[in-house]
Amino acid sequence: MLFRRNLRPYLGQGSSYFRTCVLLAMGPAILAGRAALADPLPSWNEGPAKQAIVEFVRTVTDKSSPKYVPPEQRIATFDNDGTLWAEQPIYFQGFFTFDRVKVLAPKHPEWKEKQPFKAILENDMKALAASGERGVMEIAMTTHAGMTTEEFEKIVKDWLATAKHPRFNRPFTDLVYAPMLELLAYLRGNGFKTYIVSGGGIEFVRTFSEERYGIPPEQVIGSSIVTKFEVRDGRPVLVREPKLDFFDDGPGKPVGIQKFIGRRPIAAFGNSDGDLQMLQWTAAGEGSRFMLLLHHTDAEREWAYDRQSPVGRLDKALDEALRRGWTVVDMKKDWKQVFPFK
Amino acid sequence: MLFRRNLRPYLGQGSSYFRTCVLLAMGPAILAGRAALADPLPSWNEGPAKQAIVEFVRTVTDKSSPKYVPPEQRIATFDNDGTLWAEQPIYFQGFFTFDRVKVLAPKHPEWKEKQPFKAILENDMKALAASGERGVMEIAMTTHAGMTTEEFEKIVKDWLATAKHPRFNRPFTDLVYAPMLELLAYLRGNGFKTYIVSGGGIEFVRTFSEERYGIPPEQVIGSSIVTKFEVRDGRPVLVREPKLDFFDDGPGKPVGIQKFIGRRPIAAFGNSDGDLQMLQWTAAGEGSRFMLLLHHTDAEREWAYDRQSPVGRLDKALDEALRRGWTVVDMKKDWKQVFPFK
Repeated sequence: MLFRRNLRPYLGQGSSYFRTCVLLAMGPAILAGRAALADPLPSWNEGPAKQAIVEFVRTVTDKSSPKYVPPEQRIATFDNDGTLWAEQPIYFQGFFTFDRVKVLAPKHPEWKEKQPFKAILENDMKALAASGERGVMEIAMTTHAGMTTEEFEKIVKDWLATAKHPRFNRPFTDLVYAPMLELLAYLRGNGFKTYIVSGGGIEFVRTFSEERYGIPPEQVIGSSIVTKFEVRDGRPVLVREPKLDFFDDGPGKPVGIQKFIGRRPIAAFGNSDGDLQMLQWTAAGEGSRFMLLLHHTDAEREWAYDRQSPVGRLDKALDEALRRGWTVVDMKKDWKQVFPFK
Repeated sequence: MLFRRNLRPYLGQGSSYFRTCVLLAMGPAILAGRAALADPLPSWNEGPAKQAIVEFVRTVTDKSSPKYVPPEQRIATFDNDGTLWAEQPIYFQGFFTFDRVKVLAPKHPEWKEKQPFKAILENDMKALAASGERGVMEIAMTTHAGMTTEEFEKIVKDWLATAKHPRFNRPFTDLVYAPMLELLAYLRGNGFKTYIVSGGGIEFVRTFSEERYGIPPEQVIGSSIVTKFEVRDGRPVLVREPKLDFFDDGPGKPVGIQKFIGRRPIAAFGNSDGDLQMLQWTAAGEGSRFMLLLHHTDAEREWAYDRQSPVGRLDKALDEALRRGWTVVDMKKDWKQVFPFK
């Protein structure tokens, strides 16, 4: 597959726990050698954003620096939608939900007159976007429940293997950002543990996080629905129930981070107001800190949106980033390449 | 401190993420060399339990075996109370709760007449035990809330540094099991990722899991109360609310495992009926599996209890283990030493 081949160089040394360990164990000497030989962030243009990243990593890994951070504390958290992959014209899990609603619709005739199901059945994206992220999440919960965790994983994987993004006519997992894949690998190569902290569904993101980002399922935090242990025909299963368990967005992100990781990140990466509290929480810790917002400014190669966008709105967080001197990436200026494909 | 010195040999190569990585990266050759040189489980007597552990680890790490398991899938989950440390006469978090109730009692005069608070204030362990694990957990939630996560961590750490177990007159963290510390290190040395899956409070266990077991906070799963993100005096905090979020016991354990890890363990270790579903869930996966129950049979060195015990009852799980051929450790026969201290 062209698709996989394209991603391989980015995942490289970061694609498995074991390889990361080997790299770590080989020590700073070899890492320094690598850095001298090759730019670890080739899809990033030279500029203040790239400089700030490299300088932060250099500082926290330098044992002689007063800002040195031991490896076990090098936790970096990444939003997913709009930060690691695209999120327009709606969150990609929204497209999945579209298709699930259509598959399930024959059994739910009442959906024809009931919003936001009606909007989905009529392909009315505006009406759907108007229901907001929480609305999308609630429909997701309804349409994603009633099966076991294993059945759900198979449904998502089958969908990802066939569904295509309407603008690019490619699988959704092609729309991951090449510069961010490099950044993930670069951080892991420097002893960081990289986490996804997504407003999207945790089990949805887990189906592709390891293969696409080199992030194993245990390092994915996200929104969840209640699951219940049952023994069916003598076989234990976990059944997904149509009830929200945890909404991992906005103020939920620091809560999810504390719950799953139990330590504060030293670096956090987001792109919208839903990431503000994660960045505030990260910034409030002791010692070296790195907070980054990705500003979508490139309508040609990707999309341009911020303060008025119903999806991935970047308004309050942008003000706070500018006021506090957090790194703001201007996609158009700072990224040499957006997606791994040409 | 005598205390720390005693634990060091057990934590050894397993005490930090980095050291585990180094060991992993040095490869099977050195591990094999180590195994030939020294018994990795010196506190275990020779017998079927030890044989079964060593044989399982040998098989899943042998690339030429059809039962080989790649490192990223080598997930091992451990119950805490009664499996990694002792749990008699009541769960140690119960003792912590005792002390918290006593500290907070002057502000709650109504507790003098209200069970189970009354039992605690009167040191009536029987009445407390009668309220069961869920009862203990509920009081824990009530007495553990109303502060930030950082404040709570400090309260627990201060308590652990001073409180002593009534029978052994030692810090509670001395009552970890030497054979289990060896087992944790042995598994990590063979590429396993070790997790705690405890019915106890997640933030309680995290305060000592890294130092005592070499298990970092992000590999601790446990019961939790709701926390809420707030900005106080311009500083973001997470406030613990007196409301149960998740009860990680019995059928909750597979739910917690799926939520936090997102993959099924290949090995699970417990000691009570509260671990039954975790073992069932582990056993139901494909390929090599290892399920172990610790049977407390040693009244002299520790405690002897099983089917009738209000704390750590082992009844249904014991029947199922015997029926299905899971490994049952007879503490009296199988353990050369129980605690790290002499």
